[in-house]
Amino acid sequence: MTAFGFTLLGKDGRARRGRVSTGRGTIETPAFMPVGTAATVKTQTPEDVAATGAEILLCNTYHLMLRPGAERIARLGGLHPFMHWDKPILTDSGGYQVMSLSKLRKLDENGVVFQSHLDGSRHTLTPERSIEIQHLLDADIAMAFDECTQYPVSEADAASSMRLSMRWAERSRKAFVAREGYGLFGIVQGSVYPDLREESAKALTAIGFDGYAVGGLAVGEGFDMMVATLEQTEPFLPADRPRYLMGVGKPIDIVAAVARGMDMFDCVLPTRSGRTAQAFTRGGTLNLRNARHAEEPAPLDPECRCPACRHYSRAYLHHLFKAEEVLGLILLTRHNLTYYQDLMASLRGAIARGALNAFIAEFERKQGGATVESQDVNQ
Amino acid sequence: MTAFGFTLLGKDGRARRGRVSTGRGTIETPAFMPVGTAATVKTQTPEDVAATGAEILLCNTYHLMLRPGAERIARLGGLHPFMHWDKPILTDSGGYQVMSLSKLRKLDENGVVFQSHLDGSRHTLTPERSIEIQHLLDADIAMAFDECTQYPVSEADAASSMRLSMRWAERSRKAFVAREGYGLFGIVQGSVYPDLREESAKALTAIGFDGYAVGGLAVGEGFDMMVATLEQTEPFLPADRPRYLMGVGKPIDIVAAVARGMDMFDCVLPTRSGRTAQAFTRGGTLNLRNARHAEEPAPLDPECRCPACRHYSRAYLHHLFKAEEVLGLILLTRHNLTYYQDLMASLRGAIARGALNAFIAEFERKQGGATVESQDVNQ
Repeated sequence: MTAFGFTLLGKDGRARRGRVSTGRGTIETPAFMPVGTAATVKTQTPEDVAATGAEILLCNTYHLMLRPGAERIARLGGLHPFMHWDKPILTDSGGYQVMSLSKLRKLDENGVVFQSHLDGSRHTLTPERSIEIQHLLDADIAMAFDECTQYPVSEADAASSMRLSMRWAERSRKAFVAREGYGLFGIVQGSVYPDLREESAKALTAIGFDGYAVGGLAVGEGFDMMVATLEQTEPFLPADRPRYLMGVGKPIDIVAAVARGMDMFDCVLPTRSGRTAQAFTRGGTLNLRNARHAEEPAPLDPECRCPACRHYSRAYLHHLFKAEEVLGLILLTRHNLTYYQDLMASLRGAIARGALNAFIAEFERKQGGATVESQDVNQ
Repeated sequence: MTAFGFTLLGKDGRARRGRVSTGRGTIETPAFMPVGTAATVKTQTPEDVAATGAEILLCNTYHLMLRPGAERIARLGGLHPFMHWDKPILTDSGGYQVMSLSKLRKLDENGVVFQSHLDGSRHTLTPERSIEIQHLLDADIAMAFDECTQYPVSEADAASSMRLSMRWAERSRKAFVAREGYGLFGIVQGSVYPDLREESAKALTAIGFDGYAVGGLAVGEGFDMMVATLEQTEPFLPADRPRYLMGVGKPIDIVAAVARGMDMFDCVLPTRSGRTAQAFTRGGTLNLRNARHAEEPAPLDPECRCPACRHYSRAYLHHLFKAEEVLGLILLTRHNLTYYQDLMASLRGAIARGALNAFIAEFERKQGGATVESQDVNQ
């Protein structure tokens, strides 16, 4: 069994080329993790997801604890055999979705009591229970239980929320059962306040984690504020551990965050957009419902290696969305996931060659007038 | 280019082991044709469908003429490149769906005027236009335009409907542009009246077609009546041409029809059932929404070679349907299509060995109390 670890292979400015090692395989960074909320990356088989180049998935503790239940998944051998994915899986702590999806929340020092958005049933999440669930799911990377601070928020409220998360981080660390090949990440909070981010990063480092996430971004603060917060937070993150920017984001967000020293990313955008006819391409974004594609024999992105681009015209993809055929969702999700993985591979290559700035300039030129506004796209 | 043709390789009782040759490849018979209504077998990539063993698809003229339009598909190179399927395609004539799906139909000697079920637009189908559309789609096997007689129907009404279809069959034959490797099938009508079926089969044979379909069954007449009609009709069908039983059916229906000398079948049942959690297995049918599967680690069908059975538990498939995840539809459709193709392969093997009766006895025993009632499952 390989020990959990991180190897920094090289740097280009603040950007890092690295490798995360887990008991179930390695992850080349910067890395994008497709989201498999309910133990499936929506519309894809695991073989399809692996073919895009993904080396790790993110699954959601909140969704899985409610359905089918963590104990049930444990009795069936854990998440990996359950969903037929033998590479690493990262689970979030459930904290974010409790805030965004559930009803009748009551938060106190101990944790959160909430009602399921599915059936109204009552549940409690504490740092100890979140870590236990992630253990039952057999996640290779577990996340400390935290409160994702709302945006906008006053500095005083951001401070008390962050400090609660730091106390929960310490309880999460104590509850985590260390096993060879598995890791636990802490989550930096503090909204857009530099002093709070510094205090949070230092508190987590003092506790000691296998990796450090930046949470509470991509919640409406916008691209410029996100970048500023990353630039200010990054120096306080240990260089010898992976850094994970949670819930980010659009391609332009990821590129900017990689340049600011972030290593790991997750976002529902490629999968969700694949279901709403939005395609990410080397020339910018397209909406396949647009009538101008109705008789277009060209592929979505002639440079793309995915089946949607190799085998089909834009006209066919347009037809599938107009006819509400599931194959449209399948092919476009596959394309978007492939686009994201190829973007990460290009970023890794550019960092290794010391050519990240040139890559970013070319990326921004090709994307044309693509918006640089961040968006809340968390699931 | 291979000429269109049929080779009778062997017989077991009335059952036939054969091979249909087309310009785009051969079809071993008895054969099941998955239905790709709108130029996609719902939820499946063409590679997935081919992996199940399918050698020919059925696509629907009615749906494709309305969306995206036959002329558009022709400008994009025809159905095969449009949907990325390079094996044979059979198209129906559109007559059945005009009757079952469209609004405000007006039928006369010339053809049918109807309103689209999609947008209310007005369209006309005649034998000549149906054949032209099927030519534009580039179907390897086209079907004569007919009126599918309702059930139940008086003998007088069945007779006049059938005789109209026979006049339309002659016009279809004249409109069909003969090309090497392509074929045109006539359709026997006459409801459940033996004299009418005989008259219809003789009329079509006099016109001369590359294959003969039996239409107007699986419309509510029930298993026994369907079998009786097949037994009575079969002797009047030319032995040197393929026989296609349209819209059939459940596994038990197909087995019974193969024993009565039918060679080709199509039905939405494996794909539609795959989307409603119903699985066909060697032990009978299952509904995966049933709570008894919630924690079942066993596969759907341990003898099945499909990904759903090789890689997943019934518990996972149950979870996917409860969570309304598209992967459930994908995996179960794949399974059902694999089941149908493996059933056809077993039937071909049994006929070749002269062991069809023993196969049928074993099939019925294993299916346990499976119903033998036919069902209207046409799309």
